[in-house]
Amino acid sequence: MSFPLPEPMRLALDLARAAAEAGEVPVGAVIVREGKVVATSANAMRGEYDPTAHAEMLAIRRAAAAIGNERLGDCDLWVTLEPCAMCAGAISLARIRRLYYAAPDPKGGAVAHGPLFFAQPTCHHRPEVYAGIGEGEAAAMLRAFFAARR
Amino acid sequence: MSFPLPEPMRLALDLARAAAEAGEVPVGAVIVREGKVVATSANAMRGEYDPTAHAEMLAIRRAAAAIGNERLGDCDLWVTLEPCAMCAGAISLARIRRLYYAAPDPKGGAVAHGPLFFAQPTCHHRPEVYAGIGEGEAAAMLRAFFAARR
Repeated sequence: MSFPLPEPMRLALDLARAAAEAGEVPVGAVIVREGKVVATSANAMRGEYDPTAHAEMLAIRRAAAAIGNERLGDCDLWVTLEPCAMCAGAISLARIRRLYYAAPDPKGGAVAHGPLFFAQPTCHHRPEVYAGIGEGEAAAMLRAFFAARR
Repeated sequence: MSFPLPEPMRLALDLARAAAEAGEVPVGAVIVREGKVVATSANAMRGEYDPTAHAEMLAIRRAAAAIGNERLGDCDLWVTLEPCAMCAGAISLARIRRLYYAAPDPKGGAVAHGPLFFAQPTCHHRPEVYAGIGEGEAAAMLRAFFAARR
């Protein structure tokens, strides 16, 4: 028996899959505000020659531009992989309200691993964090991507 | 008796000063490759409605775009303030060779404070770090900026 995923995570996973087909590490992100999607993205580091073009960063930049405000305090971010330190820092700076992520990232994650960024006393804004929604599909997609490149 | 600052830090401080005049928190950054400046930037969070538009992020994105490579392994970054977690993460992802920063940031810094990002076992690339060059001028500029806004 299986249950459908929440719509924003379903969309983020579909964006991740499309990224993989374009040769990018499959991570997708969606930002929701007042029940509406305000930004979507996927990893684009290779396509854009931009080491900062993680899905979360692009989604945050797009949402802030769309709303015309650098603070996204009424926005929730859905992403298929645990954010790294760069992205966790950006989530905090943008004042994202809730973070939903699918797969854990023991090697590069900074939320439940490594620097545990949101738990630092110098972290000025912590989102509510919900992990594991869509984890199986997100992790399988990443494994398949890296296996095909080995 | 005083000595002139290294040219990239002099330039970064001048960029920070110009940012303050435009209402941005005064932080400037410069990326040098093979003795040549390949990117310059200053904070632009307010002007661009972009919470990720820290000087370091813009400099890294501009350098990667200019060089046509998401890896900046032969580049050095000069910045007037200790990088935050977001920027430290980006420095690592971009494989920056050396990081020179002026003023420490006990509240938001992630290099010598808070998450000590480059010291984490999950940090995959650590630049050489040189702190304090131009510290007095950078710190005075930040203090004056915030004092005028209180």
